[in-house]
Amino acid sequence: MLNIGIIGAGRIGKVHTQSIANYVRTAKVVAIADPFLPDETIQWAKNLGIAKITKDHADIINDPAIDLVLICSSSDTHSQISLEAIAAGKHVFCEKPIDLDVDRINAVLAALAAKPALKYTVGFNRRFDHNFRALRKAVENGKIGKVELVKVTSRDPAPPSAEYAARSGGIFMDMTIHDFDMVRYLSGEEVESVFVQPAVLVDPAIGEAGDFDSAVITMKLRSGALAVIDNSRRCAYGYDQRAEVFGSLGAAVSGNDAASNAQVWSGAGVTGEKPLYFFLERYMQAFATEVEEFIEAVVNDTPVPVDAYAGLAAVLIAIAATKSAKTGLPVVVG
Amino acid sequence: MLNIGIIGAGRIGKVHTQSIANYVRTAKVVAIADPFLPDETIQWAKNLGIAKITKDHADIINDPAIDLVLICSSSDTHSQISLEAIAAGKHVFCEKPIDLDVDRINAVLAALAAKPALKYTVGFNRRFDHNFRALRKAVENGKIGKVELVKVTSRDPAPPSAEYAARSGGIFMDMTIHDFDMVRYLSGEEVESVFVQPAVLVDPAIGEAGDFDSAVITMKLRSGALAVIDNSRRCAYGYDQRAEVFGSLGAAVSGNDAASNAQVWSGAGVTGEKPLYFFLERYMQAFATEVEEFIEAVVNDTPVPVDAYAGLAAVLIAIAATKSAKTGLPVVVG
Amino acid sequence: MLNIGIIGAGRIGKVHTQSIANYVRTAKVVAIADPFLPDETIQWAKNLGIAKITKDHADIINDPAIDLVLICSSSDTHSQISLEAIAAGKHVFCEKPIDLDVDRINAVLAALAAKPALKYTVGFNRRFDHNFRALRKAVENGKIGKVELVKVTSRDPAPPSAEYAARSGGIFMDMTIHDFDMVRYLSGEEVESVFVQPAVLVDPAIGEAGDFDSAVITMKLRSGALAVIDNSRRCAYGYDQRAEVFGSLGAAVSGNDAASNAQVWSGAGVTGEKPLYFFLERYMQAFATEVEEFIEAVVNDTPVPVDAYAGLAAVLIAIAATKSAKTGLPVVVG
Amino acid sequence: MLNIGIIGAGRIGKVHTQSIANYVRTAKVVAIADPFLPDETIQWAKNLGIAKITKDHADIINDPAIDLVLICSSSDTHSQISLEAIAAGKHVFCEKPIDLDVDRINAVLAALAAKPALKYTVGFNRRFDHNFRALRKAVENGKIGKVELVKVTSRDPAPPSAEYAARSGGIFMDMTIHDFDMVRYLSGEEVESVFVQPAVLVDPAIGEAGDFDSAVITMKLRSGALAVIDNSRRCAYGYDQRAEVFGSLGAAVSGNDAASNAQVWSGAGVTGEKPLYFFLERYMQAFATEVEEFIEAVVNDTPVPVDAYAGLAAVLIAIAATKSAKTGLPVVVG
Repeated sequence: MLNIGIIGAGRIGKVHTQSIANYVRTAKVVAIADPFLPDETIQWAKNLGIAKITKDHADIINDPAIDLVLICSSSDTHSQISLEAIAAGKHVFCEKPIDLDVDRINAVLAALAAKPALKYTVGFNRRFDHNFRALRKAVENGKIGKVELVKVTSRDPAPPSAEYAARSGGIFMDMTIHDFDMVRYLSGEEVESVFVQPAVLVDPAIGEAGDFDSAVITMKLRSGALAVIDNSRRCAYGYDQRAEVFGSLGAAVSGNDAASNAQVWSGAGVTGEKPLYFFLERYMQAFATEVEEFIEAVVNDTPVPVDAYAGLAAVLIAIAATKSAKTGLPVVVG
Repeated sequence: MLNIGIIGAGRIGKVHTQSIANYVRTAKVVAIADPFLPDETIQWAKNLGIAKITKDHADIINDPAIDLVLICSSSDTHSQISLEAIAAGKHVFCEKPIDLDVDRINAVLAALAAKPALKYTVGFNRRFDHNFRALRKAVENGKIGKVELVKVTSRDPAPPSAEYAARSGGIFMDMTIHDFDMVRYLSGEEVESVFVQPAVLVDPAIGEAGDFDSAVITMKLRSGALAVIDNSRRCAYGYDQRAEVFGSLGAAVSGNDAASNAQVWSGAGVTGEKPLYFFLERYMQAFATEVEEFIEAVVNDTPVPVDAYAGLAAVLIAIAATKSAKTGLPVVVG
Repeated sequence: MLNIGIIGAGRIGKVHTQSIANYVRTAKVVAIADPFLPDETIQWAKNLGIAKITKDHADIINDPAIDLVLICSSSDTHSQISLEAIAAGKHVFCEKPIDLDVDRINAVLAALAAKPALKYTVGFNRRFDHNFRALRKAVENGKIGKVELVKVTSRDPAPPSAEYAARSGGIFMDMTIHDFDMVRYLSGEEVESVFVQPAVLVDPAIGEAGDFDSAVITMKLRSGALAVIDNSRRCAYGYDQRAEVFGSLGAAVSGNDAASNAQVWSGAGVTGEKPLYFFLERYMQAFATEVEEFIEAVVNDTPVPVDAYAGLAAVLIAIAATKSAKTGLPVVVG
Repeated sequence: MLNIGIIGAGRIGKVHTQSIANYVRTAKVVAIADPFLPDETIQWAKNLGIAKITKDHADIINDPAIDLVLICSSSDTHSQISLEAIAAGKHVFCEKPIDLDVDRINAVLAALAAKPALKYTVGFNRRFDHNFRALRKAVENGKIGKVELVKVTSRDPAPPSAEYAARSGGIFMDMTIHDFDMVRYLSGEEVESVFVQPAVLVDPAIGEAGDFDSAVITMKLRSGALAVIDNSRRCAYGYDQRAEVFGSLGAAVSGNDAASNAQVWSGAGVTGEKPLYFFLERYMQAFATEVEEFIEAVVNDTPVPVDAYAGLAAVLIAIAATKSAKTGLPVVVG
């Protein structure tokens, strides 16, 4: 039985803790750390039978009984805590991004290289979504031949505050980073260059804060294949998360999920439900699967489903995209 | 070049005339007869270059230059005009039903048996619909294995007047007769017995006139396979015309057609268009194809796509259904 | 915290136990009884922290610390154990059917009438399915007007053994009983009469055992509305579980669920996944919700989502259906 | 009755001639000109009752009885014949493009400006497609609010020869030009700048001829909204012609059309038909409607559905796209 420590008891930290309680029989959350720890979080953790509840994540890092940590703290602490956890010999599940700074990500990769027995993964949850997995499987099984174009539609239901947008590293680092990973995942390829056509169409305050809220991002992949992502921070019908992969023999296409497939047919037309509202609804099962499969990889000492390099690669594309948006020119990645 | 005479210049007579003008290069409408012949019909016929326009259908029957007649007159004249046309040595396309009376249908079949060179068909237009043809093709090609169940959904957008309903021979003879033919077409089998659960849910006046406006009709086929039809004379979203055929290896399923496949995704849900409104919209292409293929069979002396017996078989099922609805008991067909 | 005892540790008993562990915070499984109790079941129960593991269900019935029992034992024990549990003052979740015999069901209803504080429910899991709930909600919200027809498609992926079929009370008591409940649930109405067109199309041994493996079942509801169910014990593409409710203003229609909505578009056509294989796949979430909501009703002393009468009503329809299948005639229910 | 002359009796010239024969009652094709005129074309024209059949298009231009010409000749003759027809006082339906050269298009626009009574249109047939029209109508009716992004998927089933590709003005002038018009049509906006990510993924010979066979094209519109097109000259499942328009209140989305909506559900999955093969299949009705509506505009002296400026605008975008593909940089249009 693996002992797990959760660092960061915000929304996603709680989701992962609950998933482990519900679905994982080979591991147990034994400690949780969060600098804020409101009473309700303490009560929630007690109800789940978590023994150690602390404000200091060092209490987890320094606990020799803990085998694995989930880093769900604020983004600017991810690389530092990763380094501490690796130094303490713990396996690490780190929420994205590892860092906004490439040097600091490389420091984590170097630390990992020195401890090959440790498993490390980045929380690219969408790779565990049933629909995207089915696309990837179709590609891997040769159903569409050689990949020629990946198209990702990714639109959030509602924009964050302009303050958040600015602080987050910008839309490409905060939001598109998942889509960049999806392009790598679905194509099985590296991105060579990127061109961004950005816009501020949703909230002028986001523009004033120096960020964008809408974009079309075109990419050239290493093989010469193409990729394109369209993003918006606002989507009236919910969370739009679709992908299409075109190849020499056909295409693999996935759509949104809704709460039911029921339709009403009436004088007003044929009406079905909107897509599920946001990531917690759409990816709830994916969040569980990503944690389950990482723990499985630790338990069985098998390769992790998403490696640390994926965390670097997506950030490198996001940096190039940010530069392209600012200069109006295509930018080579890396 | 085949010379065609149209008997009956109502809605469906005009549809067929137009189809021949648009799509058929091997035949030409040279005459049209209708007892009413309003000015606009005369003008319409002149515009199409139809030479003979008459109130007396005998002018067509007796015209040796005419090879083929389309009987689109009122239902109660179909068998009599069929007999006249056959006696005159003309090929016949007869709208459904040949007659409500089995003896009179048999008289037509006997007349045909005596003139094997003549082609005769009944206007079961749905057999020429692209969706139902695709189902039939899937069945014929063995895609679903041995047929076990045929399901037909057939719901009209708006009820006829109670007077019409009574005069028409009742819902099973007037409306379901197409669905009975569809069961025979899709299964490739004969119907052995039928049970009707009828209801008056749409217009009480239809009930007072001795007819029904809603029904579920269950059938046992010769092989032991099953069939079921659901009918309503009123459908708020238009014309509902779907079918499913289940077999040992799977099912073949068809849906409605709409004017476009466009959808609007919004806060109110995902909304597409209603099905096409009624038979002229849904089956416009099928009406053209049925006439085209019959003329082709005449020109090439090949078997007709729908034979005269189909006209008898559907009426026999309708008679059994009518009896079942009245007695509340299952009835053997024939 | 409610204490729960599970009686019957077969497949469905385990599913419910797991659902309570995963999703229910207000109740805890403290005991499990099963006459067989293989080692792996004992180990499984221990892993879940279940304190009392016994071969004798009386150990649960007689335990004053237990508030609620789930009866998941073999069908022929349901009514007897229900009576024992009610006598012992316990709330009861009973898998369907309560009994094949109406008198014995009535005995349970009478026992309940004498103890109005006790909650009792029957495991009609499909009422908790997201798709069927959305249909019911559309009906309740008046989206389709007055109900005129309920259509239920219900086809199992693979037939049971002929022995099981015979022992189970026959297809209508074993399989269609869920569909009868669905007709009552979706329409909000009682069934007045039923006509069955049965067939043996899948496995002759089932016919030799006196049962059927295929059927179309037509019903007349109290209001005059209609219902129809089509059943097969074998379905090549998985578990076919769909429903349509037609009303004066439109229809509410639901389809199957698949493991993903991904499609491959290729020279061979547009291909998506089959429906989920069987009830454990399709209704996994519904099984959890039915237990959750029943426990919630117990905790809050609110009406149960499915009352004991529903268990009687479905059996009465199944009895009428069985009689209809044997006599070939329509049969009044009750 | 309008008299029409057809200049160019190739595939599309024949399609238009047939559409007029079938659907248009206010106009008649009285002459056809083609420099090649094989026997079968002569026979085809005679069968349609076309009186004048000539190798010299001047016979049509100079015929005072002809009111309207359809220019369906080879692309490099469009602007010249347009000028001749306008000079002769004839209404003109010109297949796209008017010319590859902007000066020559401007000469046509200038000639038209001098004869305001003449109607002139360009054959952007997709504007008459039922699905794209439904999208445009949704946009115009405010169903999706303010337009933020137009996405066009446009993939041909099979590449042309490398020779054709080179001669045609390149993929952007030959193929994407329709998609550029679609962006203008669906958004109701002008394109400000364009960036192309081109590739040669289908046929190296096309690359050697200096052209591309695949591309993703990003555009910024006048209002700041975005647009993106993905193109391929090869599509294994047929002709992929879809569009999505996103706005502040939702999205309008259209899919492909198939020959039927029938599906086979089997152990291999749920399989439907491929999209219709190519433009003659997908846009057959649109070709008829574009001619019908232009003739109607001439007859009624109302604005034409597609004006001559649309022909210039799309070429200007294609020129910018070609430059972007060559330089690798975004290019301002016009």
